[in-house]
Amino acid sequence: MKNTYFTPGPAELYPSFYQHLQKAMDEQIGSISHRSQRFQDIYKFADDQLRTLLNIPDTHGIFFTGSASEVWERVLLNCVEHESFHLVNGSFSQKFYDYANALHKHTNVLEKPFGEGFDAADIEVPEYAELVCLTHNETSSGVQMRPAEMHKLKRKYPKKLFCVDTVSSSPYPDLDFGLIDSAFFSVQKAFGMPAGLGVWIANQSCLEKAEYLQQNDTLTIGAHHTLPVLWKHYKTYETPATPNVLYIYLLGKIAEDFNRTGIDTIRRQTEEKGRMLYKFLDASDAYEPFVKQDRHRSQTVIVATTKQPSADVITAAKTANMVVGSGYGKFKESQIRIANFPAVSTEQIASLIDQLKK
Amino acid sequence: MKNTYFTPGPAELYPSFYQHLQKAMDEQIGSISHRSQRFQDIYKFADDQLRTLLNIPDTHGIFFTGSASEVWERVLLNCVEHESFHLVNGSFSQKFYDYANALHKHTNVLEKPFGEGFDAADIEVPEYAELVCLTHNETSSGVQMRPAEMHKLKRKYPKKLFCVDTVSSSPYPDLDFGLIDSAFFSVQKAFGMPAGLGVWIANQSCLEKAEYLQQNDTLTIGAHHTLPVLWKHYKTYETPATPNVLYIYLLGKIAEDFNRTGIDTIRRQTEEKGRMLYKFLDASDAYEPFVKQDRHRSQTVIVATTKQPSADVITAAKTANMVVGSGYGKFKESQIRIANFPAVSTEQIASLIDQLKK
Repeated sequence: MKNTYFTPGPAELYPSFYQHLQKAMDEQIGSISHRSQRFQDIYKFADDQLRTLLNIPDTHGIFFTGSASEVWERVLLNCVEHESFHLVNGSFSQKFYDYANALHKHTNVLEKPFGEGFDAADIEVPEYAELVCLTHNETSSGVQMRPAEMHKLKRKYPKKLFCVDTVSSSPYPDLDFGLIDSAFFSVQKAFGMPAGLGVWIANQSCLEKAEYLQQNDTLTIGAHHTLPVLWKHYKTYETPATPNVLYIYLLGKIAEDFNRTGIDTIRRQTEEKGRMLYKFLDASDAYEPFVKQDRHRSQTVIVATTKQPSADVITAAKTANMVVGSGYGKFKESQIRIANFPAVSTEQIASLIDQLKK
Repeated sequence: MKNTYFTPGPAELYPSFYQHLQKAMDEQIGSISHRSQRFQDIYKFADDQLRTLLNIPDTHGIFFTGSASEVWERVLLNCVEHESFHLVNGSFSQKFYDYANALHKHTNVLEKPFGEGFDAADIEVPEYAELVCLTHNETSSGVQMRPAEMHKLKRKYPKKLFCVDTVSSSPYPDLDFGLIDSAFFSVQKAFGMPAGLGVWIANQSCLEKAEYLQQNDTLTIGAHHTLPVLWKHYKTYETPATPNVLYIYLLGKIAEDFNRTGIDTIRRQTEEKGRMLYKFLDASDAYEPFVKQDRHRSQTVIVATTKQPSADVITAAKTANMVVGSGYGKFKESQIRIANFPAVSTEQIASLIDQLKK
């Protein structure tokens, strides 16, 4: 019997994934040239579908990388000459910050404890920070930063570039790309695909910054997947190197399925399933939602502290063919993490709650 | 009816690919955690199979990236403080060199015209070059550099690090990893998989160099996929970020199939099929092998100059469900490129020759 994966990535595959994969094999998508019209059509299709789904204007390009982690590095190399600013409240926002340090950028950071979230009112962006690095959804702790707060912050600092990590939440957050300069995600989370493809959205302002930095002999914007080269190829829906053609095809198909359902419906369903889970956790004696503030509670990765060792809960669920994530890092043994992605239905969430009640 | 892809990558999928993919879907490999024992077993399996196939000793680690192009950047960042040395005789060796320039390394280069190859006797490595960048198989021009020549060169310069691009030839070249410090390839060529995974082989000397460079505040070895971090995780068959789990699983399975056939048999079959193609081209009035020197003729990507426009040849083959590659760059319209990878059989090569005769 197959498992249902409630893990926060890699996660349950989207139900239509299998038929799209079969069609791709029938059409030999794994063998076609990335310099063919067929590939350009596939890239354009994925681009069109993502643009509709996430309401991305023409000012922004959509690029493909090996992973979202790669984008941490690319956006820092391409958009920061001296200083970046990071909001850090968990392991993944910390990694974004660590990458900036590894690249010898001058880093500024505002930290909050694991499980706490940020609002615009908390934040003062340092004067010389060029790039503001935000994490919409902290996969490690189940904390979200609401898009409205990000937009408020950008309005306060309109000249700074804003980049949002939406790895474990896109397409849920309704970002205003009239304000947000760059965002990125990976496909093995809410898009219900296997891991192996990152998606990087960036606008003309990011490109201009990269082009400006490229003229500077004292630093490098990198050699692989630089924004100017990605953008040059993007104009004809091509890529500088051979990309993961098959996954780009599959991403386009799944984004099309999402558009058929409608992004508003997907967001509403996500919130409904999230409400079911939080309501259960709030009322339970065996679990407690880790994030206290309602406005900071993630809708896509729900983290609960368990009264008994989390391994017991996970093992019991596994017996019922449900796979739940463990806590992250030092919370591994005292928390569980439940992904609430489009691939799992309301009925499956209800079954999981029944299981967790046992 | 399905096409047979004789294109030099993406290429024909290895015949067993489909059944491995089906099994992976049945086992839900696309959903498993990259922090699970299951994933560690998959990584270890792929590592074991590649180690057997390519005769890789324990001194070398095997790492996964988004693509082989990414490895150009990683090896330069991690193994070069000041100077690299490049042999350039086509578009892909040129790109390796371009990457070094983009990273502001001091680059040394020995160039030969498109279609000509290198022997050890031609080459003097500049005194301060730290990394010697070789391309076993120039995918653009169909030129190979024989491993014996690479080994001879390394023996002459034992203290320099040697890195070999085997993108469009591995597992064909019989590299002596007692001499070669690093090599890399991508899976969409001779391994008969869809694109989306790079494989990087590097030894302790590369690691030591990276660790040394990491202490230097005036340069960066990058932030993503640095060799010290890859190696640290590799010790437990893990990866720093979520990798392409599914493709690592599939690569292990295909490498196992190759080992069942035996690497000697695969190499012999490659040479037999190569001989058939070159023999036909040499005798033909309509085609001419582009590479004149027998010892520089690639066994895995055979390039021919066509008397008629190459588009006519390609279109005619396509009508017979055979897909042949066009020439590269300025040779697009006057050459064809034929991949001779393990996924195409002797019979398929014979059918292609019959078609080209028409």
